[in-house]
Amino acid sequence: PAMPSALDTNMRFKFSIFALLLQVAITVLFGIFVKYKTGRQSEGLHPLFQDVHVMIFVGFGFLMTFLKKYGFSSVGINMLIAAFGLQWGTLMQGFWHMEDGKICVDINSMINADFSTATALISFGAVLGKTSPVQMLILTILEITIFACNEHLVTGIFQATDVGASMTIHAFGAYFGLAVSLVLYRPGLKNKHENEESTYHSDLFAMIGALFLWIFWPSFNSAIASDSDRTKAIINTYYSLAASTVVTFALSSLVDRTGKFSMVHVQNATLAGGVAVGTCADLLNHPFAAMCIGAIAGIISVLGFHFLTPVLASKLNIHDTCGVHNLHGLPGVLGGIAGIVVTAIQR
Amino acid sequence: PAMPSALDTNMRFKFSIFALLLQVAITVLFGIFVKYKTGRQSEGLHPLFQDVHVMIFVGFGFLMTFLKKYGFSSVGINMLIAAFGLQWGTLMQGFWHMEDGKICVDINSMINADFSTATALISFGAVLGKTSPVQMLILTILEITIFACNEHLVTGIFQATDVGASMTIHAFGAYFGLAVSLVLYRPGLKNKHENEESTYHSDLFAMIGALFLWIFWPSFNSAIASDSDRTKAIINTYYSLAASTVVTFALSSLVDRTGKFSMVHVQNATLAGGVAVGTCADLLNHPFAAMCIGAIAGIISVLGFHFLTPVLASKLNIHDTCGVHNLHGLPGVLGGIAGIVVTAIQR
Amino acid sequence: PAMPSALDTNMRFKFSIFALLLQVAITVLFGIFVKYKTGRQSEGLHPLFQDVHVMIFVGFGFLMTFLKKYGFSSVGINMLIAAFGLQWGTLMQGFWHMEDGKICVDINSMINADFSTATALISFGAVLGKTSPVQMLILTILEITIFACNEHLVTGIFQATDVGASMTIHAFGAYFGLAVSLVLYRPGLKNKHENEESTYHSDLFAMIGALFLWIFWPSFNSAIASDSDRTKAIINTYYSLAASTVVTFALSSLVDRTGKFSMVHVQNATLAGGVAVGTCADLLNHPFAAMCIGAIAGIISVLGFHFLTPVLASKLNIHDTCGVHNLHGLPGVLGGIAGIVVTAIQR
Repeated sequence: PAMPSALDTNMRFKFSIFALLLQVAITVLFGIFVKYKTGRQSEGLHPLFQDVHVMIFVGFGFLMTFLKKYGFSSVGINMLIAAFGLQWGTLMQGFWHMEDGKICVDINSMINADFSTATALISFGAVLGKTSPVQMLILTILEITIFACNEHLVTGIFQATDVGASMTIHAFGAYFGLAVSLVLYRPGLKNKHENEESTYHSDLFAMIGALFLWIFWPSFNSAIASDSDRTKAIINTYYSLAASTVVTFALSSLVDRTGKFSMVHVQNATLAGGVAVGTCADLLNHPFAAMCIGAIAGIISVLGFHFLTPVLASKLNIHDTCGVHNLHGLPGVLGGIAGIVVTAIQR
Repeated sequence: PAMPSALDTNMRFKFSIFALLLQVAITVLFGIFVKYKTGRQSEGLHPLFQDVHVMIFVGFGFLMTFLKKYGFSSVGINMLIAAFGLQWGTLMQGFWHMEDGKICVDINSMINADFSTATALISFGAVLGKTSPVQMLILTILEITIFACNEHLVTGIFQATDVGASMTIHAFGAYFGLAVSLVLYRPGLKNKHENEESTYHSDLFAMIGALFLWIFWPSFNSAIASDSDRTKAIINTYYSLAASTVVTFALSSLVDRTGKFSMVHVQNATLAGGVAVGTCADLLNHPFAAMCIGAIAGIISVLGFHFLTPVLASKLNIHDTCGVHNLHGLPGVLGGIAGIVVTAIQR
Repeated sequence: PAMPSALDTNMRFKFSIFALLLQVAITVLFGIFVKYKTGRQSEGLHPLFQDVHVMIFVGFGFLMTFLKKYGFSSVGINMLIAAFGLQWGTLMQGFWHMEDGKICVDINSMINADFSTATALISFGAVLGKTSPVQMLILTILEITIFACNEHLVTGIFQATDVGASMTIHAFGAYFGLAVSLVLYRPGLKNKHENEESTYHSDLFAMIGALFLWIFWPSFNSAIASDSDRTKAIINTYYSLAASTVVTFALSSLVDRTGKFSMVHVQNATLAGGVAVGTCADLLNHPFAAMCIGAIAGIISVLGFHFLTPVLASKLNIHDTCGVHNLHGLPGVLGGIAGIVVTAIQR
């Protein structure tokens, strides 16, 4: 089988030539600007890098396979965006940290390049099924460029701390995607499309993505932490996720008339604890606090899926295919607030 | 789609309120008792922790998806039990090792918390399809509490060695589950239920679980080994699993009338070598011995599935949905015996 | 369900007894020759080993599940070959490096044992659906024996460098498999068989394999690199794969009449960058060069699938089930050529 694309007319040459030109341009820019970092290496980060890499390609890719007819697009276009985005992200982030006019790459910069693609993948979740591959490449270029500038502003200029990137990646990616979704809105989206359903097997495929995200989130939130705070970031994320998972099952059963668990909640809201604890994962001095943040994130996320998403679509014309607002948007904002509170209390 | 549950009547409030109360109670207990470990950290264990984490959530979760209609329950309830159990396990194991009235958590304690959930997940395999989520939460509380006491007795008081936990996790979890299954027995289970079948795709999903368990078992058996014996535990588990896999394929073909391989054997008996070599993985001084243990475990496991499981159900009223007796029970006992023999010979 | 086998007649005893005898023989040889390595250990390689282990069992196994009726055979027989092959590979590679008449095993030798099985698994891809398990065991014994001799010749005697094994594993495995496929050729294979098709779900299962291969390829190409060159090998593989992925999507859309992406290309040609950069991953002094190699590999691979595979089958009677010639054969040869060029320029 072949992967369906939204716009088949002229797709053949339009996409091919655009993608090839982009790859040629990036390769030339790499030839001019990029070299290996010399001196002290970040080899010890390699296992953390591989964990993050699994999250980006398997985690995000399979999480979006829950729709019965977009499995190929989800996991395939996810791969395309991530493979293109990590090259673009290397350049965009690198331009802010050049040494002698050169961008130096090492394991640490690869982790950051993977991180930068996450913003585009989150936005992809909001517009899944409504965009062509060409549009996604353009969105990726724009979003990663803006992300790199914003991240430099937040962590470089303002010296704000956001180790797990609740704000700079999750909230940013979600609201960027929702904005694009608003622009792409067509009246037909108001009525739930027949393709907008999951099947038994598509939900199991999505669980592969959800679980690999869940499992490796401690690595995500600790990969760019300082060596002394890394263990704390791992532990906090571990307990925050555990709390948000139990709460998600409880709330999911509560909001359903027959008390059943919704697979959408299980696949998404269980992860909200990882998003929300991101900003302060390396700051919190008590696992108890991480659990509270995780539990609140789980509650917000389930309620968002149940009550807010339908309202966004019907009243504000924002159609959010994968519900990224509930997984990345609201918990990301919660994470930012938690970061402010924790910083205010502890310092 | 939504996940089916065994008891829908009153499920909605019963489960939700019970789960929320448990999470509140655990959070309060964490607030009172749990703090981060200070001083020398166990950061080098982080990759081993992530491997074990994959086994618990993806390995155990997907291994149980082989039944055609219990895919959601398997992988979803597995996630619920594990996320709840790791918090409860932290407390139960921690109470035996308090310092100044506090439970100190680090990467090592997270590995042990993940381990403790394995007991409940193994028992879940025996009762899959016969219990409600509320019952599973109660079972998890009871089992992890007893496990923590038993483990303290075995490794703390008796000073017995059980690095891969053949006895304390695998045999314990299996026989606990079988006991629960006996209690839950209803006459209808005697006739094979129509839902008790696998399909082409459900068997492939189960292979995801089986393979991730198989691949990371060397990490499971070596995670709590001493630094000097870790490599030995990894190597022994690697060769034991390889031997049990070849023997499993041979025996599976031999016991089938047409010489075909049974997917149930491939998904389960191939792992028996990892269970059986667990107790003495860090003691064995020869890879040859690990291979012998693995081969015997593979034989026992296939014969158990083929001859023993039907007898247990029809004669003893013990219905073992996933055949945990053959994967965790018998090979766990074999591992205990191997541990005694090896200790007697080598010391 | 049970796994189908090509030759059911007498399969039952033939396969069982052959496999058991092989396991007994290997166990005896291990008893005589194999011991643990003493002295300086290679413990730091454990995370790299686990990454490679995932590639061998999940990566290769699921990549071949794309055919609608060979899912069990692919992932099951893949597991059998790998579990048997890693034991045989330990012996065959070990015989060339004995110390005092003993083969010493450690994490490094386990990585090499996993590598040796890759040759047989690549060949299996060429003959999938055309061989019985007994034939596959024989093929594995022959191929790994020849591989170990060839590898000793190339890296031991000629002192050639092939860190990611583009030539010694990928090209070798592909052309060995194609030779076997030629021998097994039957006229009926000329017409595309009805089983030689993928379905929606089988293609998603294959993506699991493709993605885990893609994600962990940096570990594959750097696992046996020297400590000082490891990071370079990781970075080069990362960017080579990214470039080959973007190019693959572009070319795949270009060669299709309707501009759609072919799942076969997405599953395979995206990986060609990892194969082709293998030989010189630790030598290249510029990420730019790795990107060029990756992009060329992606182009060659897609063109191979589209134009060459049908010609091989119809003109040369070589039927290549999984298209290993395009994923491992051509990119492997390209990798060898790149290695020669890089060595000539840089030294």
